[in-house]
Amino acid sequence: MSYFDAASAAPLHPVARQALQASLDEGWADPARLYREGRRARLLLDAAREAAADAVGCRPDELAFTTSGTRAVHAGIEGALAGRRRVGRHLIVSSVEHSSVLHSADAHEAAGGSVTLIEVDRGGRVSPSSYAEALRPDTALACLQSANHEVGTEQPVAEVAQMCQESEVPLLVDAAQSLAWGRVPGGWSLLTASAHKWGGPSGVGLLAVRKGVRFAPQGPADERESGRAPGFENIPAIVAAAASLRAVRAEAEEEAVRLRGLTERIRARVPAIVPDVEVVGDAVHRLPGIVTFSCLYVDGETLLHELDRADFSVSSGSSCTSSTLTPSHVLKAMGVLSEGNVRVSLPPGTAAEDVDRFLSVLPGVVSGVRERLGAPGAATRAPASADSLVVDALGRRCPIPVIELAKVIGDVPVGGTVRVLSDDEAARLDIPAWCEMRGQEFVGEEPADQGSAYVVRRLS
Amino acid sequence: MSYFDAASAAPLHPVARQALQASLDEGWADPARLYREGRRARLLLDAAREAAADAVGCRPDELAFTTSGTRAVHAGIEGALAGRRRVGRHLIVSSVEHSSVLHSADAHEAAGGSVTLIEVDRGGRVSPSSYAEALRPDTALACLQSANHEVGTEQPVAEVAQMCQESEVPLLVDAAQSLAWGRVPGGWSLLTASAHKWGGPSGVGLLAVRKGVRFAPQGPADERESGRAPGFENIPAIVAAAASLRAVRAEAEEEAVRLRGLTERIRARVPAIVPDVEVVGDAVHRLPGIVTFSCLYVDGETLLHELDRADFSVSSGSSCTSSTLTPSHVLKAMGVLSEGNVRVSLPPGTAAEDVDRFLSVLPGVVSGVRERLGAPGAATRAPASADSLVVDALGRRCPIPVIELAKVIGDVPVGGTVRVLSDDEAARLDIPAWCEMRGQEFVGEEPADQGSAYVVRRLS
Repeated sequence: MSYFDAASAAPLHPVARQALQASLDEGWADPARLYREGRRARLLLDAAREAAADAVGCRPDELAFTTSGTRAVHAGIEGALAGRRRVGRHLIVSSVEHSSVLHSADAHEAAGGSVTLIEVDRGGRVSPSSYAEALRPDTALACLQSANHEVGTEQPVAEVAQMCQESEVPLLVDAAQSLAWGRVPGGWSLLTASAHKWGGPSGVGLLAVRKGVRFAPQGPADERESGRAPGFENIPAIVAAAASLRAVRAEAEEEAVRLRGLTERIRARVPAIVPDVEVVGDAVHRLPGIVTFSCLYVDGETLLHELDRADFSVSSGSSCTSSTLTPSHVLKAMGVLSEGNVRVSLPPGTAAEDVDRFLSVLPGVVSGVRERLGAPGAATRAPASADSLVVDALGRRCPIPVIELAKVIGDVPVGGTVRVLSDDEAARLDIPAWCEMRGQEFVGEEPADQGSAYVVRRLS
Repeated sequence: MSYFDAASAAPLHPVARQALQASLDEGWADPARLYREGRRARLLLDAAREAAADAVGCRPDELAFTTSGTRAVHAGIEGALAGRRRVGRHLIVSSVEHSSVLHSADAHEAAGGSVTLIEVDRGGRVSPSSYAEALRPDTALACLQSANHEVGTEQPVAEVAQMCQESEVPLLVDAAQSLAWGRVPGGWSLLTASAHKWGGPSGVGLLAVRKGVRFAPQGPADERESGRAPGFENIPAIVAAAASLRAVRAEAEEEAVRLRGLTERIRARVPAIVPDVEVVGDAVHRLPGIVTFSCLYVDGETLLHELDRADFSVSSGSSCTSSTLTPSHVLKAMGVLSEGNVRVSLPPGTAAEDVDRFLSVLPGVVSGVRERLGAPGAATRAPASADSLVVDALGRRCPIPVIELAKVIGDVPVGGTVRVLSDDEAARLDIPAWCEMRGQEFVGEEPADQGSAYVVRRLS
């Protein structure tokens, strides 16, 4: 079994397991109590805070343990916005943040705040200048992930932090995907992370708030964790989180080089062995362990299912694997193909043979899915029959609208057009992406009786 | 070592430990994923939900796992209030609820809602009729704990639920202290609980919301746990929580009888072997394992420290053991003595010998603390010297104002008065309580230049 979805959750690190088990006996009592069980629990908690703060690069009293990365993000954004309420209610977030950040932004907007969404390039990376342009006198907070969770692209955090500092606006960095690899560089103001992303246990997040950052915890008062994380502390899990962060950091430099080699192999080989594939994400600024690609004419759910049958656990940002019927907001923001999307995120320790086996299995799996869906082969060009054609793909889900388009594009002459009628949200992303991949022209989207008409001109 | 503070946190039940360790291998992955690690995690989560729902007495789809009892309370109250916003913004809570409930009520009031605080009798129990009187057409929610966490008093939940049902107002029951012993009776609408109170691990709370109860989760959207508990699920801890709840329930009936015998022994013996003690909490309607008493002329922190040295871990609602310098809101609401307060809460399995050893140690510990504080003996009555005396206890903390009062009461003739000047918050509670215990008359409290003057008339 090859588990290639470390960006969702990493398997428990052996050090985390040992620390968890060892601290079950000492860490269950209330650390606020004065008797010995309480004092022992307090000692464990304090030591874990020291260790985690050292890994984050902050003071222990700047660091609170939350119950998840999501809670750290929610509490961090709410608290920072409330703390700077007098300055204004403007929030800046990148369009490729984790959903916990974007949902916090939605909640802020619903409560009357304003939000600027920073666009990314086709590699998923923001430009520091776009943050500089978005900063306003009433900006209360800016947020930027250290690296993207779906495509692995690293963001220019230090440069953006510098710009925020110059404007005296705090920057919250969601470091969930990168903290295992090292400290976040630059002058961030708030930082969030999640232990189960680095091989720590579930149930632990980090929220660091630098001294001097105005911060007003929201929600009912609670005395735990400086008022920033309500509820009884889960000390055994906190101890395990801190111990495993230290352990993965000790292995990080070497392991990063090794994993980067493996993901580079996937980046290079997949387009060579699977036709009609787009590798997405920044080729240079990227995390060691994540590589993402999208396969034309493939239904993401079936692809994942077939890979699972072949013993590979991966995830996908395709609309057909989500309950919302919309493709991943990250792929959307990047403007890249979402159908047949596969994210491979290798946990530390992944064997090279497993990656090779993945590469040997993938072509057959993809072609099998395409065959079943009746996807067009590369050479199936029928003679031109009319200057324009209409394809009715209403009620059909990804990847069918693209498959139907590809099937008929050869039926119109060069210069002719195909109108694809579709009410599938993914078509809006995938038809232009298909045009870009296949060298055809995407003329535009027009409203139709149902859904939209996507107009494509044949160029070759 | 005798740990007698199960009401704060119970030591991990062996079944919880086994279940936690066993599920670390199977429960770390994302249960929302389709691959096998995700499916295995989902199976564990579903099974735990079935088991916990059965113990609670609700449907599995009515039950969400939160990250703590506190979070369950916060989310439950916020969600229920928001769900019934159109009905009104009136909230009813008892004055002896857990701080998570009272802090939620404070937050609701700060946001413009209105709150009715239900008084309790001297045993800490609400009367159902006071809930009936408090219900209004704009009441959105009522809250009542199943049993009190500081004195063990059981509340008339079924009767209050009945009255709420008649008014079509949902009742939220905080069952943190009682769920180990059995289902909460009656027609509650929402229920909260905390796993580490029953010997489950830290990091797991329960929030049950009956079908048909209007509920609108607050805060940023999140897809986990029906949107009621944001953040990645801590499945190993959830599995351990459910397994241990089932295990403690299997032992509950027998263990309740045994522990009730032990706490009854403490209730009966302590007043006999320690002078000037008040046992607090309802003598009949009470949890099996909790007994609370207060000792005159004793400083709670020193008492706890001395008991800790004698190998007993207990907690206290005295102001001198809290960082706020105010006595427990529960003791305050009951109007009972707070100084020298001790809560003994026995974990299941407590040996009778440990309780006997506690009873043999306690008199010496209390008298030792009293001696050091210069507390008055029962027979130190000097001849009457003046009709009224003033005791200046300004700047002195609990239990000194009461000790000073007791020292001089014999110096005034019967019918004479003593004015105690004090700026200690605990004096407001403890001087009237002392009068009641010693058969003297508490005339009243008057404003003074600093703090208050508490006037006491000598009756005997």
